[in-house]
Amino acid sequence: MLGLTPFMASIGAEILEMGAGAARARLPYGPKLVGDPDSGVVHGGAVTALLDQMGGAAVMAALDHPVPIVTLDLRIDYMKPATAGVDIMAEARCLKVTHEIAFVRGSAYQTDAADPVAICTATFMLMRGAQALRAPAKG
Amino acid sequence: MLGLTPFMASIGAEILEMGAGAARARLPYGPKLVGDPDSGVVHGGAVTALLDQMGGAAVMAALDHPVPIVTLDLRIDYMKPATAGVDIMAEARCLKVTHEIAFVRGSAYQTDAADPVAICTATFMLMRGAQALRAPAKG
Amino acid sequence: MLGLTPFMASIGAEILEMGAGAARARLPYGPKLVGDPDSGVVHGGAVTALLDQMGGAAVMAALDHPVPIVTLDLRIDYMKPATAGVDIMAEARCLKVTHEIAFVRGSAYQTDAADPVAICTATFMLMRGAQALRAPAKG
Amino acid sequence: MLGLTPFMASIGAEILEMGAGAARARLPYGPKLVGDPDSGVVHGGAVTALLDQMGGAAVMAALDHPVPIVTLDLRIDYMKPATAGVDIMAEARCLKVTHEIAFVRGSAYQTDAADPVAICTATFMLMRGAQALRAPAKG
Repeated sequence: MLGLTPFMASIGAEILEMGAGAARARLPYGPKLVGDPDSGVVHGGAVTALLDQMGGAAVMAALDHPVPIVTLDLRIDYMKPATAGVDIMAEARCLKVTHEIAFVRGSAYQTDAADPVAICTATFMLMRGAQALRAPAKG
Repeated sequence: MLGLTPFMASIGAEILEMGAGAARARLPYGPKLVGDPDSGVVHGGAVTALLDQMGGAAVMAALDHPVPIVTLDLRIDYMKPATAGVDIMAEARCLKVTHEIAFVRGSAYQTDAADPVAICTATFMLMRGAQALRAPAKG
Repeated sequence: MLGLTPFMASIGAEILEMGAGAARARLPYGPKLVGDPDSGVVHGGAVTALLDQMGGAAVMAALDHPVPIVTLDLRIDYMKPATAGVDIMAEARCLKVTHEIAFVRGSAYQTDAADPVAICTATFMLMRGAQALRAPAKG
Repeated sequence: MLGLTPFMASIGAEILEMGAGAARARLPYGPKLVGDPDSGVVHGGAVTALLDQMGGAAVMAALDHPVPIVTLDLRIDYMKPATAGVDIMAEARCLKVTHEIAFVRGSAYQTDAADPVAICTATFMLMRGAQALRAPAKG
Protein backbone atom coordinates (compact mmCIF):
# COMPACT_ATOMS: atom_id res chain seq x y z
CA MET A 1 0.00 0.00 0.00
CA LEU A 2 2.91 2.28 0.71
CA GLY A 3 1.07 5.29 1.97
CA LEU A 4 -1.50 5.94 -0.75
CA THR A 5 -4.14 8.33 0.52
CA PRO A 6 -7.74 8.38 -0.72
CA PHE A 7 -7.00 11.60 -2.62
CA MET A 8 -3.99 10.08 -4.34
CA ALA A 9 -6.01 6.95 -5.10
CA SER A 10 -8.83 9.06 -6.47
CA ILE A 11 -6.54 10.75 -8.96
CA GLY A 12 -5.04 7.37 -9.84
CA ALA A 13 -1.51 7.74 -8.50
CA GLU A 14 0.58 4.70 -7.68
CA ILE A 15 3.76 4.59 -5.61
CA LEU A 16 6.51 2.66 -7.39
CA GLU A 17 9.39 2.80 -4.92
CA MET A 18 10.05 3.97 -1.40
CA GLY A 19 13.29 3.58 0.50
CA ALA A 20 16.50 5.20 1.73
CA GLY A 21 14.97 8.67 2.01
CA ALA A 22 13.48 8.66 -1.47
CA ALA A 23 10.19 7.85 -3.17
CA ARG A 24 8.91 7.60 -6.72
CA ALA A 25 5.39 7.40 -8.13
CA ARG A 26 3.45 7.41 -11.37
CA LEU A 27 0.34 9.42 -12.18
CA PRO A 28 -1.31 7.76 -15.18
CA TYR A 29 -2.81 10.22 -17.63
CA GLY A 30 -6.56 10.50 -17.46
CA PRO A 31 -9.36 12.89 -18.40
CA LYS A 32 -10.18 13.78 -14.79
CA LEU A 33 -6.72 15.33 -14.38
CA VAL A 34 -7.01 17.77 -17.24
CA GLY A 35 -6.39 21.42 -16.45
CA ASP A 36 -6.77 22.84 -19.95
CA PRO A 37 -9.56 21.21 -21.97
CA ASP A 38 -8.21 22.61 -25.25
CA SER A 39 -4.78 21.05 -24.91
CA GLY A 40 -5.60 18.12 -22.64
CA VAL A 41 -2.68 19.07 -20.39
CA VAL A 42 -2.78 17.80 -16.80
CA HIS A 43 -3.64 20.40 -14.13
CA GLY A 44 -0.59 21.72 -12.34
CA GLY A 45 -2.40 21.16 -9.07
CA ALA A 46 -2.43 17.43 -9.67
CA VAL A 47 1.32 17.48 -10.23
CA THR A 48 1.80 19.51 -7.06
CA ALA A 49 -0.39 17.16 -5.06
CA LEU A 50 1.66 14.24 -6.33
CA LEU A 51 4.96 15.91 -5.46
CA ASP A 52 3.66 16.88 -2.02
CA GLN A 53 2.71 13.26 -1.40
CA MET A 54 6.06 11.95 -2.68
CA GLY A 55 7.87 14.43 -0.48
CA GLY A 56 6.08 13.03 2.54
CA ALA A 57 6.84 9.50 1.41
CA ALA A 58 10.53 10.37 1.07
CA VAL A 59 10.57 11.72 4.63
CA MET A 60 8.86 8.58 5.95
CA ALA A 61 11.46 6.56 4.06
CA ALA A 62 14.21 8.51 5.81
CA LEU A 63 12.98 7.91 9.35
CA ASP A 64 14.18 5.03 11.48
CA HIS A 65 11.07 5.23 13.64
CA PRO A 66 7.90 6.49 12.00
CA VAL A 67 6.33 9.65 13.41
CA PRO A 68 3.38 11.56 12.03
CA ILE A 69 4.41 14.27 9.58
CA VAL A 70 2.65 17.18 7.93
CA THR A 71 3.69 19.37 5.04
CA LEU A 72 4.72 22.74 6.41
CA ASP A 73 5.35 24.55 3.14
CA LEU A 74 6.12 23.77 -0.45
CA ARG A 75 7.34 25.60 -3.52
CA ILE A 76 6.73 24.32 -7.00
CA ASP A 77 8.21 25.64 -10.24
CA TYR A 78 6.46 24.62 -13.43
CA MET A 79 9.20 24.31 -16.03
CA LYS A 80 7.11 23.26 -19.02
CA PRO A 81 3.63 21.96 -19.71
CA ALA A 82 3.21 18.20 -19.46
CA THR A 83 2.46 16.50 -22.75
CA ALA A 84 -1.16 15.40 -22.98
CA GLY A 85 -1.74 11.66 -22.95
CA VAL A 86 1.54 10.76 -21.25
CA ASP A 87 1.94 9.55 -17.65
CA ILE A 88 3.71 11.74 -15.14
CA MET A 89 6.45 10.41 -12.89
CA ALA A 90 7.31 12.10 -9.63
CA GLU A 91 10.27 11.51 -7.39
CA ALA A 92 11.39 13.12 -4.15
CA ARG A 93 14.43 12.87 -1.93
CA CYS A 94 14.73 13.82 1.72
CA LEU A 95 17.87 15.94 2.07
CA LYS A 96 17.94 16.24 5.82
CA VAL A 97 15.95 15.44 8.94
CA THR A 98 16.31 17.46 12.11
CA HIS A 99 14.39 16.90 15.33
CA GLU A 100 11.36 18.83 14.04
CA ILE A 101 11.84 19.48 10.33
CA ALA A 102 12.61 17.46 7.22
CA PHE A 103 13.81 19.09 3.98
CA VAL A 104 12.83 17.64 0.61
CA ARG A 105 13.51 18.22 -3.06
CA GLY A 106 11.55 16.60 -5.83
CA SER A 107 10.79 16.69 -9.51
CA ALA A 108 8.14 15.53 -11.94
CA TYR A 109 8.82 14.42 -15.49
CA GLN A 110 7.38 12.37 -18.28
CA THR A 111 9.86 10.48 -20.43
CA ASP A 112 13.16 12.04 -19.33
CA ALA A 113 14.07 12.69 -15.69
CA ALA A 114 16.60 15.27 -16.86
CA ASP A 115 13.90 17.35 -18.54
CA PRO A 116 11.41 17.94 -15.73
CA VAL A 117 7.88 19.25 -16.00
CA ALA A 118 8.19 20.70 -12.51
CA ILE A 119 10.58 20.85 -9.57
CA CYS A 120 9.70 21.34 -5.93
CA THR A 121 11.22 22.12 -2.56
CA ALA A 122 9.31 21.46 0.64
CA THR A 123 9.61 21.24 4.39
CA PHE A 124 7.73 18.75 6.54
CA MET A 125 7.12 18.94 10.24
CA LEU A 126 7.71 15.91 12.42
CA MET A 127 5.01 15.61 15.04
CA ARG A 128 7.02 14.41 18.00
CA GLY A 129 6.65 15.08 21.69
CA ALA A 130 4.59 18.10 22.52
CA GLN A 131 2.66 18.19 19.27
CA ALA A 132 1.94 14.47 19.35
CA LEU A 133 0.63 14.78 22.90
CA ARG A 134 -1.69 17.52 21.78
CA ALA A 135 -2.96 15.64 18.75
CA PRO A 136 -6.61 14.64 19.05
CA ALA A 137 -7.22 11.11 20.33
CA LYS A 138 -8.66 8.72 17.83
CA GLY A 139 -11.68 6.58 18.53
CA MET B 1 -18.86 28.48 -16.03
CA LEU B 2 -16.13 30.86 -14.99
CA GLY B 3 -13.08 28.85 -15.83
CA LEU B 4 -13.70 25.53 -14.11
CA THR B 5 -11.29 22.92 -15.45
CA PRO B 6 -12.05 19.21 -15.61
CA PHE B 7 -9.65 18.62 -12.71
CA MET B 8 -11.38 21.23 -10.56
CA ALA B 9 -14.75 19.81 -11.55
CA SER B 10 -13.57 16.30 -10.71
CA ILE B 11 -12.64 17.33 -7.18
CA GLY B 12 -15.94 19.19 -6.90
CA ALA B 13 -14.76 22.79 -6.71
CA GLU B 14 -17.09 25.63 -7.61
CA ILE B 15 -16.13 29.22 -8.34
CA LEU B 16 -18.26 31.66 -6.37
CA GLU B 17 -16.96 35.04 -7.49
CA MET B 18 -14.57 36.48 -10.04
CA GLY B 19 -13.91 40.13 -10.69
CA ALA B 20 -11.63 43.13 -10.14
CA GLY B 21 -8.48 41.04 -9.90
CA ALA B 22 -9.87 38.60 -7.35
CA ALA B 23 -11.57 35.21 -7.25
CA ARG B 24 -13.20 33.01 -4.64
CA ALA B 25 -14.23 29.37 -4.69
CA ARG B 26 -15.59 26.62 -2.51
CA LEU B 27 -14.33 23.05 -2.30
CA PRO B 28 -17.11 20.97 -0.73
CA TYR B 29 -15.85 18.30 1.65
CA GLY B 30 -15.90 14.81 0.23
CA PRO B 31 -14.32 11.42 0.81
CA LYS B 32 -12.29 11.55 -2.41
CA LEU B 33 -10.35 14.54 -1.08
CA VAL B 34 -9.13 12.88 2.09
CA GLY B 35 -5.39 12.92 2.70
CA ASP B 36 -5.36 11.19 6.08
CA PRO B 37 -7.88 8.35 6.38
CA ASP B 38 -7.60 8.31 10.20
CA SER B 39 -8.57 11.94 10.63
CA GLY B 40 -10.57 12.49 7.45
CA VAL B 41 -8.58 15.67 6.78
CA VAL B 42 -8.49 16.93 3.18
CA HIS B 43 -5.23 16.36 1.30
CA GLY B 44 -3.04 19.44 1.18
CA GLY B 45 -2.59 18.86 -2.53
CA ALA B 46 -6.28 19.47 -3.12
CA VAL B 47 -6.04 22.77 -1.28
CA THR B 48 -2.97 23.72 -3.30
CA ALA B 49 -4.67 22.81 -6.56
CA LEU B 50 -7.64 24.96 -5.59
CA LEU B 51 -5.43 27.93 -4.67
CA ASP B 52 -3.44 27.54 -7.89
CA GLN B 53 -6.68 27.64 -9.86
CA MET B 54 -8.01 30.63 -7.94
CA GLY B 55 -4.73 32.44 -8.49
CA GLY B 56 -5.14 31.99 -12.22
CA ALA B 57 -8.75 33.12 -12.01
CA ALA B 58 -7.68 36.26 -10.14
CA VAL B 59 -5.16 37.06 -12.86
CA MET B 60 -7.78 36.56 -15.58
CA ALA B 61 -10.07 38.85 -13.60
CA ALA B 62 -7.35 41.51 -13.58
CA LEU B 63 -6.75 41.56 -17.34
CA ASP B 64 -8.55 43.94 -19.67
CA HIS B 65 -7.92 41.66 -22.62
CA PRO B 66 -7.65 37.95 -21.92
CA VAL B 67 -4.39 36.23 -22.77
CA PRO B 68 -3.42 32.64 -22.02
CA ILE B 69 -1.66 32.29 -18.68
CA VAL B 70 0.28 29.53 -16.97
CA THR B 71 1.40 29.14 -13.37
CA LEU B 72 5.13 29.79 -13.22
CA ASP B 73 5.71 28.99 -9.56
CA LEU B 74 3.78 28.80 -6.34
CA ARG B 75 4.51 28.61 -2.64
CA ILE B 76 2.02 27.27 -0.16
CA ASP B 77 2.24 27.39 3.64
CA TYR B 78 -0.03 25.03 5.51
CA MET B 79 -0.95 26.86 8.69
CA LYS B 80 -3.20 24.26 10.29
CA PRO B 81 -5.02 21.09 9.28
CA ALA B 82 -8.45 21.60 7.79
CA THR B 83 -11.29 20.29 9.94
CA ALA B 84 -12.77 17.09 8.51
CA GLY B 85 -16.28 17.38 7.16
CA VAL B 86 -16.18 21.13 6.56
CA ASP B 87 -15.98 22.86 3.15
CA ILE B 88 -12.86 24.76 2.23
CA MET B 89 -13.01 28.28 0.80
CA ALA B 90 -10.19 29.68 -1.29
CA GLU B 91 -9.65 33.23 -2.40
CA ALA B 92 -6.89 34.89 -4.38
CA ARG B 93 -6.02 38.42 -5.34
CA CYS B 94 -3.82 39.60 -8.18
CA LEU B 95 -1.40 42.16 -6.73
CA LYS B 96 0.21 43.28 -9.94
CA VAL B 97 0.40 42.55 -13.66
CA THR B 98 3.44 43.40 -15.73
CA HIS B 99 3.88 42.70 -19.42
CA GLU B 100 4.88 39.09 -18.77
CA ILE B 101 4.22 38.27 -15.13
CA ALA B 102 1.31 38.49 -12.71
CA PHE B 103 1.79 38.29 -8.93
CA VAL B 104 -0.85 36.68 -6.73
CA ARG B 105 -1.55 36.08 -3.07
CA GLY B 106 -4.25 33.78 -1.79
CA SER B 107 -5.54 31.94 1.22
CA ALA B 108 -7.77 29.00 2.08
CA TYR B 109 -9.98 28.82 5.13
CA GLN B 110 -13.03 27.09 6.48
CA THR B 111 -15.30 29.17 8.71
CA ASP B 112 -13.13 32.23 9.37
CA ALA B 113 -11.14 34.02 6.66
CA ALA B 114 -8.89 35.46 9.37
CA ASP B 115 -7.83 31.98 10.51
CA PRO B 116 -6.53 30.39 7.31
CA VAL B 117 -5.78 26.75 6.68
CA ALA B 118 -3.15 27.77 4.14
CA ILE B 119 -1.73 30.83 2.44
CA CYS B 120 -0.06 31.00 -0.94
CA THR B 121 2.02 33.26 -3.16
CA ALA B 122 2.35 32.59 -6.86
CA THR B 123 3.52 34.05 -10.14
CA PHE B 124 1.76 33.48 -13.45
CA MET B 125 3.20 33.99 -16.88
CA LEU B 126 1.22 35.84 -19.52
CA MET B 127 1.61 34.16 -22.88
CA ARG B 128 1.76 37.16 -25.16
CA GLY B 129 3.70 37.77 -28.35
CA ALA B 130 6.53 35.35 -28.92
CA GLN B 131 5.18 32.63 -26.68
CA ALA B 132 1.68 32.87 -28.07
CA LEU B 133 3.09 32.54 -31.57
CA ARG B 134 4.90 29.42 -30.54
CA ALA B 135 1.91 27.85 -28.85
CA PRO B 136 0.54 24.82 -30.66
CA ALA B 137 -2.28 25.55 -33.07
CA LYS B 138 -5.66 24.24 -32.06
CA GLY B 139 -8.02 22.24 -34.23
CA MET C 1 18.26 48.94 19.94
CA LEU C 2 15.36 46.75 18.97
CA GLY C 3 17.21 43.77 17.60
CA LEU C 4 19.58 45.32 15.08
CA THR C 5 22.25 42.78 14.14
CA PRO C 6 25.78 43.70 13.04
CA PHE C 7 24.87 42.76 9.46
CA MET C 8 21.82 45.01 9.49
CA ALA C 9 23.85 47.78 11.08
CA SER C 10 26.57 47.34 8.46
CA ILE C 11 24.09 47.88 5.64
CA GLY C 12 22.64 50.83 7.51
CA ALA C 13 19.16 49.55 8.35
CA GLU C 14 17.19 51.03 11.22
CA ILE C 15 14.12 49.56 12.90
CA LEU C 16 11.32 52.12 13.18
CA GLU C 17 8.58 50.19 14.95
CA MET C 18 8.07 46.85 16.64
CA GLY C 19 4.94 45.71 18.40
CA ALA C 20 1.77 43.62 18.25
CA GLY C 21 3.25 41.03 15.92
CA ALA C 22 4.55 43.54 13.41
CA ALA C 23 7.76 45.40 12.63
CA ARG C 24 8.86 48.14 10.26
CA ALA C 25 12.31 49.35 9.22
CA ARG C 26 14.06 51.72 6.85
CA LEU C 27 17.07 50.96 4.70
CA PRO C 28 18.62 54.29 3.69
CA TYR C 29 19.93 54.34 0.14
CA GLY C 30 23.67 54.11 -0.14
CA PRO C 31 26.36 53.16 -2.64
CA LYS C 32 27.35 49.98 -0.78
CA LEU C 33 23.89 48.53 -1.42
CA VAL C 34 23.97 48.86 -5.18
CA GLY C 35 23.33 45.72 -7.20
CA ASP C 36 23.49 47.23 -10.67
CA PRO C 37 26.19 49.89 -11.07
CA ASP C 38 24.65 51.21 -14.31
CA SER C 39 21.28 51.96 -12.77
CA GLY C 40 22.29 52.40 -9.13
CA VAL C 41 19.47 50.08 -8.09
CA VAL C 42 19.78 48.42 -4.67
CA HIS C 43 20.74 44.73 -4.70
CA GLY C 44 17.76 42.44 -4.21
CA GLY C 45 19.76 40.55 -1.62
CA ALA C 46 19.83 43.60 0.62
CA VAL C 47 16.06 43.86 0.37
CA THR C 48 15.70 40.17 1.17
CA ALA C 49 18.05 40.45 4.15
CA LEU C 50 15.98 43.36 5.44
CA LEU C 51 12.70 41.49 5.02
CA ASP C 52 14.16 38.40 6.68
CA GLN C 53 15.21 40.51 9.64
CA MET C 54 11.83 42.28 9.84
CA GLY C 55 10.08 38.91 9.71
CA GLY C 56 12.06 37.78 12.72
CA ALA C 57 11.32 41.04 14.49
CA ALA C 58 7.59 40.59 13.82
CA VAL C 59 7.73 37.11 15.35
CA MET C 60 9.55 38.41 18.43
CA ALA C 61 6.91 41.12 18.68
CA ALA C 62 4.19 38.44 18.65
CA LEU C 63 5.63 36.36 21.50
CA ASP C 64 4.58 36.84 25.11
CA HIS C 65 7.81 35.24 26.32
CA PRO C 66 10.86 35.59 24.11
CA VAL C 67 12.44 32.41 22.76
CA PRO C 68 15.30 32.13 20.29
CA ILE C 69 14.08 31.93 16.69
CA VAL C 70 15.68 31.10 13.36
CA THR C 71 14.44 31.61 9.84
CA LEU C 72 13.41 28.24 8.45
CA ASP C 73 12.56 29.28 4.90
CA LEU C 74 11.64 32.39 2.99
CA ARG C 75 10.22 33.26 -0.39
CA ILE C 76 10.68 36.63 -1.95
CA ASP C 77 9.01 37.99 -5.09
CA TYR C 78 10.61 41.03 -6.67
CA MET C 79 7.75 43.03 -8.14
CA LYS C 80 9.68 45.95 -9.59
CA PRO C 81 13.16 47.44 -9.34
CA ALA C 82 13.66 49.90 -6.52
CA THR C 83 14.26 53.46 -7.63
CA ALA C 84 17.90 54.47 -7.20
CA GLY C 85 18.56 57.08 -4.55
CA VAL C 86 15.40 56.44 -2.56
CA ASP C 87 15.21 54.71 0.85
CA ILE C 88 13.52 51.35 1.13
CA MET C 89 10.93 50.61 3.80
CA ALA C 90 10.21 47.07 4.93
CA GLU C 91 7.39 45.83 7.08
CA ALA C 92 6.40 42.37 8.25
CA ARG C 93 3.51 40.89 10.13
CA CYS C 94 3.38 37.62 12.04
CA LEU C 95 0.20 35.82 10.93
CA LYS C 96 0.32 32.93 13.35
CA VAL C 97 2.49 31.31 15.99
CA THR C 98 2.26 27.62 16.80
CA HIS C 99 4.36 25.76 19.36
CA GLU C 100 7.26 25.40 16.91
CA ILE C 101 6.57 27.58 13.88
CA ALA C 102 5.69 31.20 13.18
CA PHE C 103 4.29 32.34 9.82
CA VAL C 104 5.12 35.77 8.45
CA ARG C 105 4.24 37.97 5.51
CA GLY C 106 6.09 41.12 4.61
CA SER C 107 6.66 43.70 1.92
CA ALA C 108 9.20 46.30 0.92
CA TYR C 109 8.36 49.59 -0.74
CA GLN C 110 9.68 53.05 -1.31
CA THR C 111 7.14 55.85 -1.35
CA ASP C 112 3.86 53.91 -1.51
CA ALA C 113 3.15 50.84 0.62
CA ALA C 114 0.49 49.81 -1.91
CA ASP C 115 3.07 49.59 -4.71
CA PRO C 116 5.69 47.23 -3.28
CA VAL C 117 9.17 46.59 -4.58
CA ALA C 118 9.01 43.07 -3.16
CA ILE C 119 6.78 40.83 -1.09
CA CYS C 120 7.82 37.91 1.06
CA THR C 121 6.48 34.93 2.95
CA ALA C 122 8.56 33.16 5.57
CA THR C 123 8.46 30.63 8.36
CA PHE C 124 10.50 30.89 11.53
CA MET C 125 11.29 28.12 13.96
CA LEU C 126 10.89 28.70 17.68
CA MET C 127 13.73 27.09 19.58
CA ARG C 128 11.90 25.82 22.61
CA GLY C 129 12.47 22.73 24.73
CA ALA C 130 14.53 20.07 23.03
CA GLN C 131 16.27 22.41 20.60
CA ALA C 132 17.03 24.99 23.25
CA LEU C 133 18.56 22.30 25.43
CA ARG C 134 20.77 21.25 22.57
CA ALA C 135 21.89 24.77 21.72
CA PRO C 136 25.57 25.41 22.41
CA ALA C 137 26.33 26.91 25.78
CA LYS C 138 27.58 30.47 25.73
CA GLY C 139 30.75 31.48 27.54
CA MET D 1 35.63 40.76 -12.53
CA LEU D 2 32.97 38.23 -13.35
CA GLY D 3 29.92 40.17 -12.38
CA LEU D 4 30.69 41.32 -8.84
CA THR D 5 28.27 44.06 -7.82
CA PRO D 6 29.07 46.80 -5.32
CA PHE D 7 26.84 45.09 -2.75
CA MET D 8 28.64 41.78 -3.20
CA ALA D 9 31.97 43.55 -3.05
CA SER D 10 30.92 45.39 0.09
CA ILE D 11 30.15 42.12 1.89
CA GLY D 12 33.43 40.70 0.60
CA ALA D 13 32.19 38.00 -1.77
CA GLU D 14 34.40 36.70 -4.56
CA ILE D 15 33.32 34.67 -7.56
CA LEU D 16 35.51 31.59 -8.03
CA GLU D 17 34.08 29.98 -11.15
CA MET D 18 31.53 30.75 -13.83
CA GLY D 19 30.78 28.61 -16.85
CA ALA D 20 28.46 26.08 -18.47
CA GLY D 21 25.37 27.32 -16.67
CA ALA D 22 26.94 27.23 -13.22
CA ALA D 23 28.70 29.58 -10.84
CA ARG D 24 30.52 29.30 -7.53
CA ALA D 25 31.62 31.93 -5.02
CA ARG D 26 33.13 32.34 -1.59
CA LEU D 27 31.98 34.67 1.16
CA PRO D 28 34.87 35.06 3.60
CA TYR D 29 33.79 35.21 7.22
CA GLY D 30 33.85 38.66 8.73
CA PRO D 31 32.36 40.60 11.62
CA LYS D 32 30.15 42.77 9.37
CA LEU D 33 28.23 39.68 8.28
CA VAL D 34 27.21 38.55 11.72
CA GLY D 35 23.52 38.02 12.34
CA ASP D 36 23.69 36.82 15.93
CA PRO D 37 26.28 38.64 18.03
CA ASP D 38 26.20 35.96 20.74
CA SER D 39 27.12 33.12 18.43
CA GLY D 40 28.93 35.05 15.69
CA VAL D 41 26.86 33.23 13.06
CA VAL D 42 26.56 34.90 9.64
CA HIS D 43 23.20 36.59 8.90
CA GLY D 44 20.96 34.46 6.74
CA GLY D 45 20.31 37.48 4.58
CA ALA D 46 23.96 37.59 3.54
CA VAL D 47 23.74 33.95 2.50
CA THR D 48 20.55 34.65 0.55
CA ALA D 49 22.11 37.65 -1.17
CA LEU D 50 25.06 35.51 -2.16
CA LEU D 51 22.85 32.72 -3.53
CA ASP D 52 20.72 35.25 -5.40
CA GLN D 53 23.84 36.66 -7.02
CA MET D 54 25.22 33.21 -7.87
CA GLY D 55 21.87 32.25 -9.37
CA GLY D 56 22.09 35.23 -11.69
CA ALA D 57 25.69 34.39 -12.53
CA ALA D 58 24.65 30.81 -13.40
CA VAL D 59 21.97 32.14 -15.75
CA MET D 60 24.46 34.48 -17.43
CA ALA D 61 26.80 31.51 -17.78
CA ALA D 62 24.02 29.57 -19.52
CA LEU D 63 23.25 32.20 -22.17
CA ASP D 64 24.88 32.22 -25.58
CA HIS D 65 24.13 35.91 -26.00
CA PRO D 66 23.99 38.01 -22.85
CA VAL D 67 20.72 39.76 -22.05
CA PRO D 68 19.85 41.73 -18.93
CA ILE D 69 18.27 39.56 -16.23
CA VAL D 70 16.48 40.24 -12.97
CA THR D 71 15.56 37.92 -10.14
CA LEU D 72 11.83 37.27 -10.29
CA ASP D 73 11.45 35.20 -7.13
CA LEU D 74 13.58 33.10 -4.83
CA ARG D 75 13.02 30.57 -2.08
CA ILE D 76 15.66 29.79 0.48
CA ASP D 77 15.64 27.01 3.05
CA TYR D 78 18.06 27.38 5.94
CA MET D 79 19.11 23.84 6.82
CA LYS D 80 21.50 24.58 9.67
CA PRO D 81 23.32 27.56 11.13
CA ALA D 82 26.66 28.35 9.55
CA THR D 83 29.63 27.81 11.82
CA ALA D 84 31.09 31.09 13.03
CA GLY D 85 34.52 31.94 11.72
CA VAL D 86 34.32 29.74 8.63
CA ASP D 87 33.90 30.96 5.02
CA ILE D 88 30.71 30.19 3.17
CA MET D 89 30.72 28.74 -0.34
CA ALA D 90 27.77 29.19 -2.65
CA GLU D 91 27.08 27.47 -5.93
CA ALA D 92 24.20 27.65 -8.35
CA ARG D 93 23.18 25.84 -11.50
CA CYS D 94 20.82 26.99 -14.21
CA LEU D 95 18.43 24.10 -14.89
CA LYS D 96 16.62 25.57 -17.85
CA VAL D 97 16.27 28.72 -19.92
CA THR D 98 13.11 29.53 -21.82
CA HIS D 99 12.50 32.65 -23.90
CA GLU D 100 11.59 34.70 -20.82
CA ILE D 101 12.47 32.69 -17.72
CA ALA D 102 15.51 30.87 -16.33
CA PHE D 103 15.21 28.32 -13.51
CA VAL D 104 18.00 27.94 -10.97
CA ARG D 105 18.90 25.77 -8.00
CA GLY D 106 21.70 26.53 -5.62
CA SER D 107 23.20 25.71 -2.27
CA ALA D 108 25.52 27.21 0.30
CA TYR D 109 27.89 25.21 2.47
CA GLN D 110 31.04 25.53 4.48
CA THR D 111 33.37 22.54 4.45
CA ASP D 112 31.18 19.87 2.84
CA ALA D 113 29.01 20.52 -0.23
CA ALA D 114 26.88 17.52 0.75
CA ASP D 115 25.95 19.11 4.08
CA PRO D 116 24.53 22.48 3.05
CA VAL D 117 23.82 25.45 5.24
CA ALA D 118 21.03 26.50 2.87
CA ILE D 119 19.46 25.53 -0.42
CA CYS D 120 17.63 27.77 -2.83
CA THR D 121 15.39 27.73 -5.88
CA ALA D 122 14.89 30.83 -7.98
CA THR D 123 13.52 32.13 -11.24
CA PHE D 124 15.09 34.92 -13.25
CA MET D 125 13.47 36.98 -15.96
CA LEU D 126 15.30 37.59 -19.22
CA MET D 127 14.77 41.16 -20.37
CA ARG D 128 14.47 40.65 -24.10
CA GLY D 129 12.41 42.48 -26.68
CA ALA D 130 9.58 44.50 -25.25
CA GLN D 131 11.07 44.85 -21.79
CA ALA D 132 14.49 45.76 -23.09
CA LEU D 133 12.94 48.42 -25.27
CA ARG D 134 11.21 49.85 -22.26
CA ALA D 135 14.32 49.84 -20.09
CA PRO D 136 15.61 53.30 -19.27
CA ALA D 137 18.33 54.60 -21.55
CA LYS D 138 21.76 54.89 -20.02
CA GLY D 139 24.23 57.65 -20.14
